[in-house]
Amino acid sequence: MADAVIRSRKPATSTRTPAGGAPTAPHSAAEASEPRIDVDAVTDMLLGTWADTRREARAMIKDPAFWRIDGLSVEDHRERVMGQLQLLVDSGASARAYPVEYGGANNNGANIAGFEELVLADPSLQIKAGVQWGLFGAAIQQLGTKPHHDKWLRDVAELKLPGAFAMTETGHGSDVAAIGTTATYDPDTEEFVIHTPFRGAWKDYLGNAAVHGRAATVFAQLITGGVNYGVHCFFVPIRDEAGNFLPGVGGEDDGVKGGLNGIDNGRLHFDQVRVPRVNLLNRYGDVAADGSYSSEIASPGRRFFTMLGALVQGRISLDGAATTASALAVYIATTYANQRRQFDSGSGTPEVVLLDYGKHQRRLLPRIATAYAQAFAHDEFLKKFDGVFSGRTDTPEEREDLETLAAALKPLSTWNALDTIQDCREACGGSGFLAENRLVGLHSDLDVYATFEGDNNILLQLVGKRLLGDFAKQFKGADAAKLARYAVGQTAGKVFHGAGLRRLGQTVADFGSTARSVELGLREDQQHELLADRVQQMVSDIATRMRPAAKMSPEDAAAVFNENQAELIEAARAHGELLQWEAFTDALHKVGDDGTLQVLTWVRDLFGLALIEKHLAWYLIHGRLSAQRAGAVSRYIDRLCLRLRPHAQDLVDAWGFEPEHVRAPIASGAEQARQDEAAAYFAELKASGKAPVSEKTLHKKSKK
Amino acid sequence: MADAVIRSRKPATSTRTPAGGAPTAPHSAAEASEPRIDVDAVTDMLLGTWADTRREARAMIKDPAFWRIDGLSVEDHRERVMGQLQLLVDSGASARAYPVEYGGANNNGANIAGFEELVLADPSLQIKAGVQWGLFGAAIQQLGTKPHHDKWLRDVAELKLPGAFAMTETGHGSDVAAIGTTATYDPDTEEFVIHTPFRGAWKDYLGNAAVHGRAATVFAQLITGGVNYGVHCFFVPIRDEAGNFLPGVGGEDDGVKGGLNGIDNGRLHFDQVRVPRVNLLNRYGDVAADGSYSSEIASPGRRFFTMLGALVQGRISLDGAATTASALAVYIATTYANQRRQFDSGSGTPEVVLLDYGKHQRRLLPRIATAYAQAFAHDEFLKKFDGVFSGRTDTPEEREDLETLAAALKPLSTWNALDTIQDCREACGGSGFLAENRLVGLHSDLDVYATFEGDNNILLQLVGKRLLGDFAKQFKGADAAKLARYAVGQTAGKVFHGAGLRRLGQTVADFGSTARSVELGLREDQQHELLADRVQQMVSDIATRMRPAAKMSPEDAAAVFNENQAELIEAARAHGELLQWEAFTDALHKVGDDGTLQVLTWVRDLFGLALIEKHLAWYLIHGRLSAQRAGAVSRYIDRLCLRLRPHAQDLVDAWGFEPEHVRAPIASGAEQARQDEAAAYFAELKASGKAPVSEKTLHKKSKK
Repeated sequence: MADAVIRSRKPATSTRTPAGGAPTAPHSAAEASEPRIDVDAVTDMLLGTWADTRREARAMIKDPAFWRIDGLSVEDHRERVMGQLQLLVDSGASARAYPVEYGGANNNGANIAGFEELVLADPSLQIKAGVQWGLFGAAIQQLGTKPHHDKWLRDVAELKLPGAFAMTETGHGSDVAAIGTTATYDPDTEEFVIHTPFRGAWKDYLGNAAVHGRAATVFAQLITGGVNYGVHCFFVPIRDEAGNFLPGVGGEDDGVKGGLNGIDNGRLHFDQVRVPRVNLLNRYGDVAADGSYSSEIASPGRRFFTMLGALVQGRISLDGAATTASALAVYIATTYANQRRQFDSGSGTPEVVLLDYGKHQRRLLPRIATAYAQAFAHDEFLKKFDGVFSGRTDTPEEREDLETLAAALKPLSTWNALDTIQDCREACGGSGFLAENRLVGLHSDLDVYATFEGDNNILLQLVGKRLLGDFAKQFKGADAAKLARYAVGQTAGKVFHGAGLRRLGQTVADFGSTARSVELGLREDQQHELLADRVQQMVSDIATRMRPAAKMSPEDAAAVFNENQAELIEAARAHGELLQWEAFTDALHKVGDDGTLQVLTWVRDLFGLALIEKHLAWYLIHGRLSAQRAGAVSRYIDRLCLRLRPHAQDLVDAWGFEPEHVRAPIASGAEQARQDEAAAYFAELKASGKAPVSEKTLHKKSKK
Repeated sequence: MADAVIRSRKPATSTRTPAGGAPTAPHSAAEASEPRIDVDAVTDMLLGTWADTRREARAMIKDPAFWRIDGLSVEDHRERVMGQLQLLVDSGASARAYPVEYGGANNNGANIAGFEELVLADPSLQIKAGVQWGLFGAAIQQLGTKPHHDKWLRDVAELKLPGAFAMTETGHGSDVAAIGTTATYDPDTEEFVIHTPFRGAWKDYLGNAAVHGRAATVFAQLITGGVNYGVHCFFVPIRDEAGNFLPGVGGEDDGVKGGLNGIDNGRLHFDQVRVPRVNLLNRYGDVAADGSYSSEIASPGRRFFTMLGALVQGRISLDGAATTASALAVYIATTYANQRRQFDSGSGTPEVVLLDYGKHQRRLLPRIATAYAQAFAHDEFLKKFDGVFSGRTDTPEEREDLETLAAALKPLSTWNALDTIQDCREACGGSGFLAENRLVGLHSDLDVYATFEGDNNILLQLVGKRLLGDFAKQFKGADAAKLARYAVGQTAGKVFHGAGLRRLGQTVADFGSTARSVELGLREDQQHELLADRVQQMVSDIATRMRPAAKMSPEDAAAVFNENQAELIEAARAHGELLQWEAFTDALHKVGDDGTLQVLTWVRDLFGLALIEKHLAWYLIHGRLSAQRAGAVSRYIDRLCLRLRPHAQDLVDAWGFEPEHVRAPIASGAEQARQDEAAAYFAELKASGKAPVSEKTLHKKSKK
């Protein structure tokens, strides 16, 4: 995993030793003598396969020119981010994915890794860079052919040709196949006529469209010879050098957004705009001068998904950036929680550090574990992507797996980012609401990650359908007898697991159980069994309920699907969670250092058990856990939190963020300084003998 | 409930008949002939006891001068909101709570109701008005006495004296008792010396402090004669007429925040600032000229909580405003979901309206139910507040109940607002991310509601402690034998409910159960039993685990408490949910109209069952539901969603929002117009005979 890793010096963060002594605050000698993680080694693990590129990107964005400034006007923010894109070009960080002949490095994995880190500087920068090079440029690279590359790719890489990626329409977001824009071939002039037939077919929410874009890769229904060959992509110039719309092109500004206001999102529409025939990006489908259509891929459906699949990198970079943003949020909240004191725990005792509260541990520690799981899963994901896009493992099966992986992981990590950032914001109280402490800005900016590049629920539904498809393959060509045996097996299985024997047995066995025995029964193998079994059972149950739909009218079949939609999405989520858990466990198995292995095993256990706790009702209903065992899951999580509490700072420090990446005053040591000053004031007051006595003391004295 | 209600004309919203016909879209004749709610009557129910004031406030804010403008600079937004406060004064909407002699109406309930509606215009306006009149002014009114009222209250009401409420410090938020600012009495000059001893004791996050405040009600440790009498409140001038800080007063701007940027939050600090003795707001504690302290309330603890309790209205208005904001969000998302079409449900079928998707129903309909429950609970809450603060029911017990109610309901409604708004934002896709559609702004502004006026977790912990206290009272003076019987009963109860007999019996009984029988077993009484029983059992379990702490050292006792903290907070949440459910049910029992009663009963059932589903694991572990019955809960919710789907638009229309309150283009009918235009285009194309054939059709033909 870490073959490309350069071992770096420990980052000199001022927050590393918050209490002016031990980096963490163990509560007893027993805890203090526990194993510790090797922070630098864990940093290497978290940075993953392209750690060198990530470190390069992080070094670059230590320059304040890359940082988000809160409170800028929309216009100023847009111009600032456009300027930052030029800085990326100047730093050679814009085109790692492109072929060497166009100024690139032909390194797909490194390219994504480097872009993801930009989220630490300003998510607007990450996304605007993604629009320019990962969407507009990638459409030309992935959907176009050599003449297109020769003509535009270097200018795209150098930002001489800023462009928009015009896929989404006001009327159609995730349902790209149904877009309304048409590209009708005119054999007389050998041109395509790009046209917007109605308001709902305006291109919408496009970065670079409101101000900076000079051209757009426009997705439209390709019509030639009276036949609609489905959605294809066209290179369409939209503005002249002075920034004015070209004839027939119009548009408007999307205005203020919930976040990412450094990007000039806008709308575009086309009134019979003519582009040369060769502006069709023709890698997967072409139109000859005479108007005849040809494609290597005969099936319109498969061709469509192949084209979309060529653009999967957007989802990958969102998964990675969401993970990094989650990690930053937990870093800030954990560092603060290790310094901030509030309420004494009883009369006369000193005020307690936030992270010593049971509830606070329960809020933050599972968040740390989830960010870890996401990082390990993301690295596997990125390696798979790099394999396919480098051509090393470019098979239809690998592409399909990559799509499914993207559709499973992006929803989980982007939703988790929002939940994590929000919880961290609340865990920091009023300070968390100040823009200077980063959390509110991260939430606002990452909000839209949950619905762009494919709405999260729709992506999970795709995963669910794939799972159902794989399940059905098991029975392909099966005879009636086999299906009947299967059906009986299902029922038996349900009765066995769901109602009686197995659970009853467990009840008896558990009756005298101690915490220890429960713990022994929830180790790696059992976690895996519980998580994997749930996916399998859910898919099997849904498939059983949906089987009759095969013989129904489309409307009735749709109704049956609809009844199962929410649960299918849940099954897909369970699949994604399993993938994350497995990636974490794979990463664990490569750890050599005993202390690191021990602590990270607890972190993995916390991740796994938090998943099991979240779905506890399912495990109980389906007889996978007895009531006693289920009740013990939460107690086990409590114990894991207590065990991990002294390691919390190490675990967040291992992300390797430096002060220039964090920038939140509350995680800078300022809170510790304030606590120290207040404590010194009270100590001095006490020593001076001038401290006022409390009224309570007075009452007690007068009673005596 | 509706005695003060004026029956209004149906609001003329353009969204009322989205499909140009029936207000809702029933899917079959059977559904169309189902009972319908009486929308106007339900509006009356939702607006509650002070419906007339709410209507007055809503009529006032139809003036665009009150509306939030997205993208304003922080400075411009602050000045705009300050101007809006003056408009409130001019409209007579600023001082309903104050006595008549100071220009008020002496109507506490109406005052809060009117302020809450301002959230529809701009949450910054609601909160800045709350700072000026509900915190700064209320401190003078509630903690001061007649001379203070005579001197300042009219100027406060008329905004001639804008002020800050200086309670929170950088170092102490919810733990007010531990603030560091001191007010030391100097008998020689008959002055209090207000002083900030260290950086953590700076007052922080104070609305009106950065720019507009001329004075502040400052909370400080009152020290006289060498004794600290705890936190009291002082009137302290901070700026001159020109807006410059007075000598000894300093401060800084809190800068950009995650939301509510129409309010000038800032910090204040005091360097030996002298104010006259009479500036102590002395209703609950006074210092004579000679420095002797006196109070009607002997106990320092009870005095402190009485003072804080006098300011409970802040929490009340947050509960109401969060409910209204949730309702607005669900109104926007539901209206859009009834117009927006996406994906066809099978080959050849027309695209489906979003709200017809099972997953979408599951997302939005329980949100509608929760907003309803919150509205009914809030009205009960507001009536209790009005009773206490009008003096009609002002007893210590009622005040304590009011406090507990505030601490239970505010966390639930403010958290739910954030979850609801976020889910609605996502349910509207990219459109939901545009500021013009309101949802992102509502989320940003309401974010801090979860931690101000008392951090939600800390408030719930207060509720939990109260529940434990009430529980303990049952055993006050109980002899050892009684306690032993109780302990045995507990164990027996646990075994009975938790492990075996009852559940096994249910399993057998349920084995052949149909959906219908499950439904019959989850009606009103059973819902109540399940919800109430859970609170009782949780509190009892925690009390049992914490009992040994009574004999421990403070440190060990704190550790035991800490182990149970997260669950205590859960118990408090369960208590709040029960209160909401009961308020909904009480409201139902007053409904006369059959159709309304039927539909609202389904809504209440959806609310109750969604709660039970959320805590399903608990019910299973504690033997309250068998696995079969638990599995049926989710299916029952699915059926309720299907049943309520045709009523969704009626249910959100019943909030009575008019276009000037909604203002979101996607909920204005624009989406419907786009859908109609697109459908007309395709119909015309088809009729013209010029429509391109699809490639698929071509393939099929060529195969024949």
